[in-house]
Amino acid sequence: MKTVILIFDGLTALDAVGPYEVFRSVPGWEVEFVAPERGEVRTDAGSLGLIADRPYAEVAAADLVLVPGGHGNRSLLEDEPLLEWLREIDRGSTWTTSVCTGSLVLGAAGLLRGRRATGHWLYLEPLRAYGAEPVVGRFVEDGKLLTAAGVSAGIDMALHLVGREVGPEVAEAVQLGIEYDPRPPFDAGHPSKAPAPIVELVTAVSNARNPGLSSLADPEQP
Amino acid sequence: MKTVILIFDGLTALDAVGPYEVFRSVPGWEVEFVAPERGEVRTDAGSLGLIADRPYAEVAAADLVLVPGGHGNRSLLEDEPLLEWLREIDRGSTWTTSVCTGSLVLGAAGLLRGRRATGHWLYLEPLRAYGAEPVVGRFVEDGKLLTAAGVSAGIDMALHLVGREVGPEVAEAVQLGIEYDPRPPFDAGHPSKAPAPIVELVTAVSNARNPGLSSLADPEQP
Repeated sequence: MKTVILIFDGLTALDAVGPYEVFRSVPGWEVEFVAPERGEVRTDAGSLGLIADRPYAEVAAADLVLVPGGHGNRSLLEDEPLLEWLREIDRGSTWTTSVCTGSLVLGAAGLLRGRRATGHWLYLEPLRAYGAEPVVGRFVEDGKLLTAAGVSAGIDMALHLVGREVGPEVAEAVQLGIEYDPRPPFDAGHPSKAPAPIVELVTAVSNARNPGLSSLADPEQP
Repeated sequence: MKTVILIFDGLTALDAVGPYEVFRSVPGWEVEFVAPERGEVRTDAGSLGLIADRPYAEVAAADLVLVPGGHGNRSLLEDEPLLEWLREIDRGSTWTTSVCTGSLVLGAAGLLRGRRATGHWLYLEPLRAYGAEPVVGRFVEDGKLLTAAGVSAGIDMALHLVGREVGPEVAEAVQLGIEYDPRPPFDAGHPSKAPAPIVELVTAVSNARNPGLSSLADPEQP
């Protein structure tokens, strides 16, 4: 399974690295990181650099493509060469996937029209602008499209994908290898569970950091 | 809170990036990646490069230090300059932490003598060689030492640490921001839950990949 993970300046590192850790653990799966240009990209907080070994333009096909989220993907939504590359990869892929606000990029490429999809809980409604039906879920499978909720949800999605593609035994072995037996010490990981003031705080902070994406939700501010 | 994450060739990416995503979300916390040398290190599967912005030797003090695991840390266990640096950082730290087999590095630095500690389920017994008491747990706090179980456990540990240091509200806000509401599609994340053949398979594969670390468990093969 030839797997390509798109990275870019301003991505959220865990969106990409969670699924990477799952995919790279599957025997025979080859994972490659690509970006607009070869070399370093910086994550959204700025304090970590990840290396893309090839520019995406050098990759003509993949069995599995993953688009992570992060504040930096606002500019990708209008990057026509990148969106055309995604459409081309999607034509030949077995799985086209995203984590967090990566689903907005799939949407901008026109890949979500009439499809059920999810993403970070703060950025579900903007999916409608791309003709998608937003769905609340840890991950949502619609045909070969597999979209995950925010950041950490990529781990769950990737294990699901491995189970679908190679079978539950391999997925269980990968899960055991990365000791994915989560026990969050708090229970505030979704707005349906978190105290209202915490939801308000995170919404305000995220909108302030990320005005480009939040304005997508408001058709008056295209 | 000045936070330093040590990276090195052959680290497991998620060990470092899971906690990074938590720490970097806390207002005012500064996270820096350091390595034996400035520049790129490759993860254990080889397909991802991470950037260290400074050599560790340039960092004289930190409030929080984190040592991830991975096959590559076998050589760290005998790297006296690195171990001396860890001891020096530990003298001034508020928290000294590890994920996965990173606890073996803390052990090799002499920081676990007489302490309760955990790590990846496959590499708990080797902790005894360093005078530690291995404990089965998602994370284990003993004084300022905080050690996490395998790979993905760093996320749980980091949220716990934020809760201890800044309070549960901030930890909950971070959890909500990274939408950490895990729903693993399988339930094989710990050997106490996984089917026996899966446990045997993962043990065999890991020992084959990682003979240096597994031999630590056997005093006949130092």
